[in-house]
Parts: sequence; C-alpha cells; structure tokens
Amino acid sequence: MQDFYQALTPKLRQYRRSFHKCPELGFLEYHTTYKIAEEMKALGFTVYLGKEVMESDARLGLPSSKEIEMHEKKAKQWGVPDEYIQAMKGGHTGLVAVWDTEKEGAHLGFRFDIDALPITEHGHPDHLPTKEEFRSNEEGVMHACGHDGHITIGLGLAHFISHHHEQVKGKFTLLFQPAEEGGRGAKAMTEKGWLRDIDEWYAGHLGIQPLPVGTVAGATRGFLASAKLNATFKGVSAHSGMEPEKGKNALLAAATATTQLYTIPRHSNGASRINVGKLTAGNGRNIIGDKGYLELEIRGETEEVNDFMKQEANRILQSVANMYDVSVDIEFVGETESVVCNEDLIRPISSPHIRKWEPFIQVSGSEDASFMMNEVQKYGGKATYMLFGTPLPFGHHHPQFDFDEGALLVAVDTLIQIVKRRTEDE
Amino acid sequence: MQDFYQALTPKLRQYRRSFHKCPELGFLEYHTTYKIAEEMKALGFTVYLGKEVMESDARLGLPSSKEIEMHEKKAKQWGVPDEYIQAMKGGHTGLVAVWDTEKEGAHLGFRFDIDALPITEHGHPDHLPTKEEFRSNEEGVMHACGHDGHITIGLGLAHFISHHHEQVKGKFTLLFQPAEEGGRGAKAMTEKGWLRDIDEWYAGHLGIQPLPVGTVAGATRGFLASAKLNATFKGVSAHSGMEPEKGKNALLAAATATTQLYTIPRHSNGASRINVGKLTAGNGRNIIGDKGYLELEIRGETEEVNDFMKQEANRILQSVANMYDVSVDIEFVGETESVVCNEDLIRPISSPHIRKWEPFIQVSGSEDASFMMNEVQKYGGKATYMLFGTPLPFGHHHPQFDFDEGALLVAVDTLIQIVKRRTEDE
Amino acid sequence: MQDFYQALTPKLRQYRRSFHKCPELGFLEYHTTYKIAEEMKALGFTVYLGKEVMESDARLGLPSSKEIEMHEKKAKQWGVPDEYIQAMKGGHTGLVAVWDTEKEGAHLGFRFDIDALPITEHGHPDHLPTKEEFRSNEEGVMHACGHDGHITIGLGLAHFISHHHEQVKGKFTLLFQPAEEGGRGAKAMTEKGWLRDIDEWYAGHLGIQPLPVGTVAGATRGFLASAKLNATFKGVSAHSGMEPEKGKNALLAAATATTQLYTIPRHSNGASRINVGKLTAGNGRNIIGDKGYLELEIRGETEEVNDFMKQEANRILQSVANMYDVSVDIEFVGETESVVCNEDLIRPISSPHIRKWEPFIQVSGSEDASFMMNEVQKYGGKATYMLFGTPLPFGHHHPQFDFDEGALLVAVDTLIQIVKRRTEDE
Amino acid sequence: MQDFYQALTPKLRQYRRSFHKCPELGFLEYHTTYKIAEEMKALGFTVYLGKEVMESDARLGLPSSKEIEMHEKKAKQWGVPDEYIQAMKGGHTGLVAVWDTEKEGAHLGFRFDIDALPITEHGHPDHLPTKEEFRSNEEGVMHACGHDGHITIGLGLAHFISHHHEQVKGKFTLLFQPAEEGGRGAKAMTEKGWLRDIDEWYAGHLGIQPLPVGTVAGATRGFLASAKLNATFKGVSAHSGMEPEKGKNALLAAATATTQLYTIPRHSNGASRINVGKLTAGNGRNIIGDKGYLELEIRGETEEVNDFMKQEANRILQSVANMYDVSVDIEFVGETESVVCNEDLIRPISSPHIRKWEPFIQVSGSEDASFMMNEVQKYGGKATYMLFGTPLPFGHHHPQFDFDEGALLVAVDTLIQIVKRRTEDE
Repeated sequence: MQDFYQALTPKLRQYRRSFHKCPELGFLEYHTTYKIAEEMKALGFTVYLGKEVMESDARLGLPSSKEIEMHEKKAKQWGVPDEYIQAMKGGHTGLVAVWDTEKEGAHLGFRFDIDALPITEHGHPDHLPTKEEFRSNEEGVMHACGHDGHITIGLGLAHFISHHHEQVKGKFTLLFQPAEEGGRGAKAMTEKGWLRDIDEWYAGHLGIQPLPVGTVAGATRGFLASAKLNATFKGVSAHSGMEPEKGKNALLAAATATTQLYTIPRHSNGASRINVGKLTAGNGRNIIGDKGYLELEIRGETEEVNDFMKQEANRILQSVANMYDVSVDIEFVGETESVVCNEDLIRPISSPHIRKWEPFIQVSGSEDASFMMNEVQKYGGKATYMLFGTPLPFGHHHPQFDFDEGALLVAVDTLIQIVKRRTEDE
Repeated sequence: MQDFYQALTPKLRQYRRSFHKCPELGFLEYHTTYKIAEEMKALGFTVYLGKEVMESDARLGLPSSKEIEMHEKKAKQWGVPDEYIQAMKGGHTGLVAVWDTEKEGAHLGFRFDIDALPITEHGHPDHLPTKEEFRSNEEGVMHACGHDGHITIGLGLAHFISHHHEQVKGKFTLLFQPAEEGGRGAKAMTEKGWLRDIDEWYAGHLGIQPLPVGTVAGATRGFLASAKLNATFKGVSAHSGMEPEKGKNALLAAATATTQLYTIPRHSNGASRINVGKLTAGNGRNIIGDKGYLELEIRGETEEVNDFMKQEANRILQSVANMYDVSVDIEFVGETESVVCNEDLIRPISSPHIRKWEPFIQVSGSEDASFMMNEVQKYGGKATYMLFGTPLPFGHHHPQFDFDEGALLVAVDTLIQIVKRRTEDE
Repeated sequence: MQDFYQALTPKLRQYRRSFHKCPELGFLEYHTTYKIAEEMKALGFTVYLGKEVMESDARLGLPSSKEIEMHEKKAKQWGVPDEYIQAMKGGHTGLVAVWDTEKEGAHLGFRFDIDALPITEHGHPDHLPTKEEFRSNEEGVMHACGHDGHITIGLGLAHFISHHHEQVKGKFTLLFQPAEEGGRGAKAMTEKGWLRDIDEWYAGHLGIQPLPVGTVAGATRGFLASAKLNATFKGVSAHSGMEPEKGKNALLAAATATTQLYTIPRHSNGASRINVGKLTAGNGRNIIGDKGYLELEIRGETEEVNDFMKQEANRILQSVANMYDVSVDIEFVGETESVVCNEDLIRPISSPHIRKWEPFIQVSGSEDASFMMNEVQKYGGKATYMLFGTPLPFGHHHPQFDFDEGALLVAVDTLIQIVKRRTEDE
Repeated sequence: MQDFYQALTPKLRQYRRSFHKCPELGFLEYHTTYKIAEEMKALGFTVYLGKEVMESDARLGLPSSKEIEMHEKKAKQWGVPDEYIQAMKGGHTGLVAVWDTEKEGAHLGFRFDIDALPITEHGHPDHLPTKEEFRSNEEGVMHACGHDGHITIGLGLAHFISHHHEQVKGKFTLLFQPAEEGGRGAKAMTEKGWLRDIDEWYAGHLGIQPLPVGTVAGATRGFLASAKLNATFKGVSAHSGMEPEKGKNALLAAATATTQLYTIPRHSNGASRINVGKLTAGNGRNIIGDKGYLELEIRGETEEVNDFMKQEANRILQSVANMYDVSVDIEFVGETESVVCNEDLIRPISSPHIRKWEPFIQVSGSEDASFMMNEVQKYGGKATYMLFGTPLPFGHHHPQFDFDEGALLVAVDTLIQIVKRRTEDE
C-alpha cells in the first residue's frame, strides 16, 4: 500500500489543481463531468450520464436555457466532445460510476459534489492558486468551497477500487453530483432511484471548521434544513423628477423587503439563518424602478424552525409588496432537509494518515446530501457525513478560500479504510 | 411655404421612426450621430464631431470603456463607417452643425438632445411603435422621452435654413447633444465654448405635461437643480449558513441605504426629489454579499434645496456604511443647475400650426440644458426653454411612452417663425 | 388714540406673560378660558361658553376622559370657580364673545387660538421667559407657538371695541378657539354655526416667518390641507429570551411603520408633509412588545396631494401590521383644509405702528382656521389670514421659542384700523 | 411529615395569592420585602435588610429617584411601617434570612427572586387570578413570571427549617433577591459578599417550559449571557409643517435603530437574542421629535456571542444617530453571565410529590442568578439551577400567564429533600 499512496499523492494534487482552474456553476459542469467520466472509464468503471443519472423535473434552480446554451458553446470551445454535450444537453451534468465485483458483499455508496460558486477568485500573490498558477480561468466563477478537492477524493477512491478490485467484494456506486450549492442537485439524483439499494453511504467535506490536517470526524450533527427562494417584484416605472407619485416602486420594495427579512425573530427551538445573497432592481437613475429581484435562503435546525422561517419570509415578502402597491412572485428553487447521521456506522479508524478521530463534529451549514441520506435510511441503509480537517485561513465562499492539499490523501485513505474494513469484516 | 410644410411632414415622420428604431444610450450615440451628420452635410451645414464638440473630461457618468468598446463594435455592424467611429472614439458622440450666412445678423443657437433610455419598449399591440412596426430594435433601450422627436425637429429646422438660406441672415448653430438623461452631456459641450457668442438660444421638449397638439409654451419655470450619484459599498463575503457573523454585509447596506434615502425630510423652501433608480448587490444566494451598488439622483427647486438633499444623502450613505462596517465610495456622475428663462425672449407667435400660446408653463423635471442656458446668459445672451404640446397617454420614461407625431411640425414651425421674425426684425 | 395705545401697551405685556405662565393643552384650557371670560365680561361683552360654543361630537382628538378629569381637578386647584368648570365640563373649553352695537353695519368676526403645546420650556438664562420669570409653571406644557400672544391680541381688540363702542357700528364676534394645534377645535365651533352670518372674518399669526416688528401681511398663500391620525398596533407579548418566536411584535411594527411612512414619494402637484410626532410602544425590556402607538400627520398643498398622502399612509400602516402579523387601528383625530384668502379684503393700512405692508406671504403650515374661512366664504362672506412680523431666533414649537412683544401692539392696531376703516367706509 | 405537608399546602396557596395581588417592580419591592421579613422573623430567622444586603453602587437599572420616592409613599399607604421604609430607603429592597443551627454541617444557600413585571394583567374571566379574585391590584404591574410562587417556595422551605431545626444541621441562608427582571439585582447581593462561604447553592424556576406538575429538573443548560441597554437619542424639534428641514429627528432615529437592531446576523457559535422592549419618542404630532428612548437587551449563548451582539448593537445605535445627525447616549443597566450548573450536585430525588426527575433541561432565557452561581463556584462551592414543572397555557411575560399552584408543594418538597439528604449524608 505504501507504494500506492506514494504514487497517488502527486496525482491528487494534479487532479485538484486542474479542476480548480476550470470551475463551472451548478448544472453547467459539462467540462468537469467530461473529465471525470474519462478518468472513471479509464479506471474500468461503468459510467452513467445525462438523463440516466437524474430526474429532469426534480432539478431545482436550473439556470435559464439561454445560460445553458451559452455554456454548452463554451464547453465545446474548451474541448468537450460533442457526444458528451449531447448526452448532458439542457443541464443534465454529473455522473454515476459503478463497479460491481460480482462477489457477494455490501453495496457501498459514495457522493462527491462537483460544482463551483459565482465568486471572483482573489489575485493576492500569497493566495496559493495565484502563486502556483492554478487560479480560476473563468472570471466570476471559483471553487471556493473545496468541491475541486471532493472530485479529487472520489477519483482517489476510484484508483484504489480499480487497483484492488480482486481483494474487495460487493458493489460500489460513486455519485458525482452537480449543483450542490443552493441545494439543487441531490434531489434529482435521489428521485432517479440511485440510493434505494445502498447499504452504507458516505459523503464528507473538507474543512467546514478549521482543524489540523489528519483530523477526521466520522459524523456531523447540526446540518440545517433550508429553503431557497427567488422573489420578483413588479411595479410601474415613471419619471422620478416629473411625476414621482405615478410610480409603483418595485426597487424600493425589494430593498425594504431585504432589510425586513433580517428582522425575523430568532427561534427558541434551534438555530436559524436568513440571507439575501443577490439583489438587482431598477433600470436607470431617473426612473422609478418597475422591477426588483431577490435571491434568498432560509435555514432552520429542525423542520419546525425551517417552516417558521419560510412562513415569516413569505409574509414579509407579500406585505412589503402590498405596502408599495406592487406585485411579488415567490419561487422555490432549492431545498435541503435536516438529517441525522448513523453515528454507529464507523468505528474509529487507525492509520498513519489519520492523526485524530472525532466521533462527530457540530456544524451549521446545509447540505442537499440530506436528501440522499434520508433516502438511504428510508430504504433500510445507513448513512454518514464526515469531515476532513484542514486549516482555513479564509472561510468557505471567501475569494481567498483555500485548503491544505495534504488533507486530500487523509480523506482518500479514510474511504479506503472503510472499504477495507467492510471487506475484512465479512 | 405651404409647399415646404407639405413636403416636410412625411419626412419628419420618417426621421422620427427611423431614430426610434435604433435607440442608443448616452455617449453611445454612434449610429444616431452618424445619421444626423450625413443629413446635415447633405443640407449644406458644416459639421463638427468628436473632441471638437466637447471637453472629454467634463463628460459625466461616462459608460465603462468595456461598454463603449462593445458598442463601437455594434455600431460597425450597424453600418457606421470606420472614419465616423474613429472620430467619436471613446464616447465622443453628438455633433455641432453650423450655417453662417455671412450676412450681418444675430447668432442663434438651438439644442436638440439625442440619447435614449435603458427601458425595454412595451410590445402591446396598441402601442403605436409596435403597431406601425418601428418598435426599438435594441432590447432594453428605448426612446421613451421623445428625443427621437427632438432630433427630428432639429433636422426639420435645418431643412428650412438650408432651403431659405438666401432669405435669412446671421449665423445658426445647431447642437445635437449626447447624454441628456442623467444630466451628463451638456456640461462638456458648454465647457468647449460653443455657447459663448450666441445671442439667442432655444431648446424645448415634446410633452412633459399632457397638452393638445398645437399648444406651445414660450418658456418654462421650475426646472429643478439636480445631482446624480453612484454609491459603491464594499464589505466581506462569508458563508451565510456556516458563519454569518463573519460577513460584512454590503448588500444589506445598499438595501438599507436605499430605504433610508427616501426618509430625507421635505424642505419648506421648495420642491425636492430623491430616487434610487438602480440597485445591484451580492453574488449568490448563500454568500453574504460583499458589494452593493446604487445609482441615485436628488433634485431641488433651488440650489439651497438641492444642496440640502446632497448633504443629507451623503450623510445617510456614510452612516449606513458605518452601521454595517463596510466602506462606501460616492461618485458624482451628473448634475443640472436651476435656471431662469428669459421670458421676454419671444412674443406670442401666430401661425396656423400654433393653436394656443402660453407665455410659460410650470414643470418639475431637471435638464442639463441649464448649463448651456446659464452660460449663454453669463456671456450676455438670452435663452429660453419651450414646450411643445402633445397628449401623453403614458408618462415619460414609461415602457409605452409615445407622443403625437403631429407635434413635430408644430415645433419645427415654432422655430421657423422665430428665425423668420428675427430676420425680419432687423 | 395716542393715550389709548399708551395705556394698552403695558397691559398687553402683562396679559401675554400671565397666559404664558399657565399654558394648557387643547380642550383643557379651563384656566385660560376662565381668565379670558372674566376680562371679556368686565369689558362688557356677552360671553358664551361650553356647549353653546361648539358641537361636542365635532371635536377631534379629544383627550381621554381620565386626562380631562385630572385637568379639571387641577383647574380647580388653580382657582377656576366651580361654575366655570361645570360649564366647560368634559373638554368644552374656549369661548365666543359678542358685541352688537345694534347700529346697522357689517358683522365682523375675529378668531384667536388659545391652546399650548406638549413641550418642556427651556430654562436657558437668555430665554426671555426664564430671565423675566414668566416661564411655564407646568412641566411639559409650553406656549411655543405664540397663542399666548394671540389671546392678548384678542383682548387688546376687545378693549378698543369696548372703549369706542359709541364710534363703531355693526356687530363683532370674537372667537377664542381651543385646540388649534393638531387641527382639532375649529371644526366644532364652525359646525355650531357661529360663522354663517359673518361678512368679514379675520385671523392671523405672530411670526411663522422671521420678519421685523412692524411688518404685516394682509393675506397668506399656501396653507396646507392636513389630516391627523393615531395608529394603534396590537400584537402578543412573549418572553424575548425564552420564546421570541411566540411574540407578535407590535413595537417593531410601530417602529417600522414610522420609518416607512417617510418613504411616501414627493408629489409633482404640490408640497406635501409627513410627520410621526409621537411614538410609544412596549412594556419592558425582556418582553416582546404587544402594543405600539403612533401620532402622525400628513399634509398636502392641495386636496389631491393630501388625499394621496392619506391613501399611502393608510396602506403603509395596514401593510406593516400584516408584515408583523399584528392588528392596527387607525383613527382620524384632526384635519385642516386648504384655503384661499380673499386677498382683496383689506387694502394696505397706514399707521405709525405698521412699517411695512405685504399684500400676501407664502407659508407652508396648516391651520384649522381653514374650516372657518371656507364656511364664511361658503355663506357669502370674505375671510383672510394675516401675519404679524416678529424676529424668531428659534422656530415655532422649539423649546426656546419666543417672539418680540412689540409685535402685539402692531397686531392689535392692525385689527383696530380694519374696524375703523370699515366703520368709516359706510 | 404527612401532617406538615397537609398543613403547608393551603398556606402556600394563600402566600402566593397575596403576593400576586400586590406586585412591585424591581427595587420597589417595599411591601413585598416587608411581608416576607415579618414571616421570616416569626419563623425565627435572623433577617438582614437594606444596605446590609447589597452594594448600593452595584445595583443596575435603578428606577429614577422620583419613581422611588413615589413608590415609598405608596408603600406607606399600603401599610408598610416607617422603620421598614427607612431601612430600605432609596431602593434597597430584598432581604437575607439566616438560620444557623450551630451544629457542624454544610452551609446551604437558596435564592428566591421577588419582583414583578410592567404588564397589565388580563381580566379574562377564565384567567384564574381574575376568577378567584387575586388579580393584581396595581394597574400595569403583574407577577407574570411566577416570582410570587418563588417567594412562596422560599417561605415554605423556611417553615420546614423552622419546624425541624432540631433535626437539621449546618447553616441556611435564604436570599430574597429584588430586581431579577432585567438582570439588575443579583450583582449587588453578590458583591456584598453573601455568596462567598456557601457550600451548596440552589435556585430554581417554575415553568420556563410547559411540563406536568411533578416533573423536576436538577439542573439547566443554556442560560444565555445578556446585557441590558438604554439608548437615549437627542435631536432638535421643529414645526413639522413649516420647516421640516430644520429638525434633527430623534424619533425617527429611535424607530430606525429599533428595526436595524433586529438585522444583527445570527452567530454560528451559539444562540443569540435581541429585543427592544420599550420605545418612547417625540412630544406631539406636529413637532419633529427631539428625543427618542429605547430599552433593549441582547443575549448570547456564550460570552463571545454576547460580546458580538453588544458590539453590533453599539455600532448600530451610534451609526443611526449619525445618520439623523442626532446624539445618542448608551447606558448599560443590567447584565447576566453565562453559567454552568454543577450537574453532579444532586442525585435524583424520590418522593411521592416528584413524579419525574430530569438530570437537566435545556433552556434559553437569562438569569442574574448566574452572578451568584459563578461566585459560589469561584469560592469553591457548587451551584445548580433547577426547574419545577407546571403546564403553561400562556408563556412567561404574557398578560394571562399563570401556573399550576400544585407545583409549589413539589418545589418546596424538592428543597426539603435536598436539606434532609444533606443532613443524613453526614
């Protein structure tokens, strides 16, 4: 195994950096999927793409068809072969790779999310991707949440399975999921049925909390349920100097709604969140704005808290629209569920790469992995969401986000040990 | 003259509709300027273009160089010859056309504004430009303030001067000014010196108030001084679920500032206005927004009221930035002055086209013509700003704005009568 | 007459200062009315009190019966005889004093407002009432609008009529009106019918604009129509630490409504105003506030503008209540109308006391005298509202408001000249 | 013991109802303290009062001296003897009662809070205090948090100690603490030194969460650190119709600050709270308000979160003052600390009155008992905060708050069992 790890280490770095350079937003991961698919095929996995992989209608917050078309053209320019683009046409990105040993044994599922964020990567000379020249090629898009690392971990695990397929038994399903950001992609894969006969299911995240490389948590507690909304206000424009009283000010409605949404009270039954992350309104300086658009999300530690936040947000949006005599259209475009890990799924792992084992860590983000986990559990399997420690000089979604690449091998090794133990157990 | 009017009438309609179809925003009027220039040259005027016409540095609220370049490319596609694009390069649009009879006489100046607005024209079948198929070709840009008509009036006057140059005397300067919307273009033409030796100066507007076709007002009272500001808030992004307390929320600052700006008190010394006409902020739903951008304008009936509004707006923007611990950069991008028409400049005109003469009409918009008028008056000339009546089923800056094309001949005739009377007077 | 003026001058000062010391709020002017009534009876006028003077139900914004009772007790302690208190019982303050010469002639009406404001008078040693020891005896109540002066002017005019009753002719009705502040008292006197057979009607104000003593304006333009509203929000209290989500926050609704009311747009057809002048909400620090109470007023230069403000304020109050899931009760408690003075009512007056005569002055307050004026005009009479100049180091309603007592004689003399001229005219 | 409980039961009800009828706000508990003192003396305790009991300067959020004086007068009318009023003069309410058995043994401390809330008790016929005629005698003041019950529990325990003083050993200190609401009274008792030689310290609360009568929790987790602030905005008044631009609007500042305070982001390291519980501003409808006053509190699960809330609240208050060009004065008037119970202090108690024992319950209020607990622990003792179950048809601080009086005996019995066990243990 020592040789295997030694050979794998530079490969992991290379994978990570090449994905980091070509980040793609959710449901637009054409190039990313193509690259993963080629690797997985080369390793001997059976690869499923496009509509085989997801229920089209269960995708949430799909980009506009114009954006999808534009990105399909760009993907072509980036060298993605036509057959791949055809297979994924219309935002059916992501893939499922399966290895069936055809020996009796458990069915293990693994999920790796692959999308990037609408953030312009920082050019600071101390920022590693800048210094080592793998900064994002795409202005305004960045792997600022570590999914480039997650893809890499998936490929690392695939190398192990491929090279040790004679030693292992059972069946392995690796889900490379699009559009995790905004909780938009997992539901579509789940509804396609990929999770129903899995015995054990594993996902994980680099970072979340700053921890030394080598620390691994076998489970998490505290993922928040969430809902993603778009609100579109429509009013009537008017000349702001000549007849301001004639306008129905949708810009002002959008601004007021934003501030008001933050006044939703805290809930005594658990943590909650509210964020308006995007706001565009109005046409020009001397025109009363006739439209306003918000992208927001709410979260709650329990479904009850999440529902409270939803109900309050909804009432605020409607009431502010009434206040300015404009209309509002509210659209749900993403969601995640609250989830409980099977904390008994893995016992502490000892390996030279894993220096500290935590049975669980408390977190407070949201994850659409929750859909997959709840599905696995519903069909009698077990599921857990792990954390792989890395220092975080800047938080997730920060323009200087980065992680320690040493954490990649730790994560891959954790998954390998899980596979090995499972194989030995039986 | 009857023949002249008869020949002119269809031409006016044709001019108006062709400009209406190709609207261009301020400092991007490449195609518009080219078309006017060709007509004016054909009529025998001397035409000045580009940096001859304006002080580059006195232009306010110039589009970004990227927007200018993109539009220069588009202008080329629309058939604007390279020499024109070169002459206007970098946003030096608009033109000055001069006819000097070289006979002793007064120097008369006329100003026509030529820019359009960032509004998507309505497609309602009852909207004349839709019905008669001259709706804007350019999504999101529209002649919704009647400047297509103003250009047409200028060309109509030019026809008269050209065809009657033997009868008239003195000198005629026609300024086709870019970027009136937002009060951005007049200052640059003024500072170039074009207004300094003009004896009498005339401008006017179609509509403003709904009046029957045939009504003309010789002057206006009440144009508001104004200032145009852009405010850019900068904060720090963070993951809105995992560590909301780490963000410095520039989106929320922009939204709050918007609402707060409307709370500036009314002023007992005269009318005032405030409008935030554009607001864009944030990057994505689950990211605390690290930037927020506002385009706003304030107005005041007197310089005192305008200064009060400026001071209050400034303090609000700064204080809201402090409140959210973000920075704000405030940029002045346009302004207009308050102005007093020389109401004695024209006596009532009798003509079959002019059915009702008003010595003045009260208005409450803003006009950067104020810079030109104050300059003419400063150098000893006289200036007035007229109104040409038209019904207005929808107000200015409305997506269904339209005017009665019959008003075009009335306006041209008014200017012709002014020229004729001046010529006869002496 | 010289002797008359000489004797009157110290008396005016004495009147003014004694009323200044005992200010009383609207509909609570028991002591004030009693003092005026005693003077007017001594001068020979017929005095009407209580329900003879006003329609009970047309009084707006009456204090609570508890406040009225408490003040009735206080009035008794201040020495107001029981029979007076009985006559005015339940907030029927103010009086009408009539002198009928029984000689043929015009019926002249005069109105003087008598109420004070809920302001704590400043104790600054340079503040004349402090320095000369006639500062308000009543903490939190102050004659900060000059009505102490108005009462004095009425008494001064009464002295003239009384002493010269043989020279004058016709009939004189002096209305000492309660509760002008907030536009609450004039309507009730008007509806009682006192204004219906008046030929000429005069009222006036000290100050409004800072002008030298001796300046008099025969009329005003620009009084704003207005409406006075109280809004009471009701929600549900809850422990703010233990279960904040259970509260329905009426305090937050009241605060938000306040800020939002100021965002009502300016109107292009005339000046407008909005003010929330009082706000009380909540019970205690760690309780979600279950009630919120606002006192506000809106104004408009025309009835159209006033109606626009009313409609917008109403919608905002309702929508904010919905936003916080609380109820709101909106009560109209006062109003004034817009009004047009009969500017031809008085020709310039020459008198040594009147140094400068203005035909009219532009103002922007509101006056419930408007009800009386519109009534007089409706029944065929003429009415005007004058201004009597005084410097104003601090504005009206300021804790250091004061006026130059020299203006009192100017005002009295103006009314005397009007009476004399009317008598001579016929 | 059966007889003892039987005799005690009606006494507890009677105590509770008599205190419920005469509620007094924090530092004004003159009558309450007098009644407790008389009972405790009669039972044989040594009673300490006034400045013996607390550090005057460590009292937070003391009422104004005017309010204190007024209440001292009222207390006299209610029959509190002069010597008591003298002893407590100036807001030194509350008492400490000590019983020293002079037998070797532990020093046990117990704390009971005695103050009421500024809430008007509901008059609903189904509300027990209304139905059974022990509703608050004092309009606007109510025992809506169960402190009437807490006093009663203290007196119940005192009965036991008194009647069984021969069986028990060690020393007993009962602290009847004023002004728990707002976290204002515990600090002053703590700083006087009463907690320094206590071995075991117990306090508790009725309710908090709705639980059946008979349920007892031996400890709590989650009490929030908190800070109580008053903010006073000062501006300049002006006539809102005549010169609105002259005012500096402190009312609007107070309203805006209120809404803005609720926009402080959630913190990922623990629960937080914000509440503005009282807001009064302005003087009268047509005056720009020159003052605004807020009572608010913030809370945080940890000192870090609490400090974050403090810092944000402070910056918002300052920035809003700047925005409206008014001043703000921020005063700290109360605080509580976060605290950790010694959960090992008591083992489950079995008694027929205690039906269900919980080792701890999660809560989210704040308690200034935290000062006492942290002090006991600092000096080597142990401390815990218990809960005594009762159904809660309406939450704490609700105008219809009530608890099941059956819980009183459960609570007294819990304390008795603790005392007995401690005595047997040694």
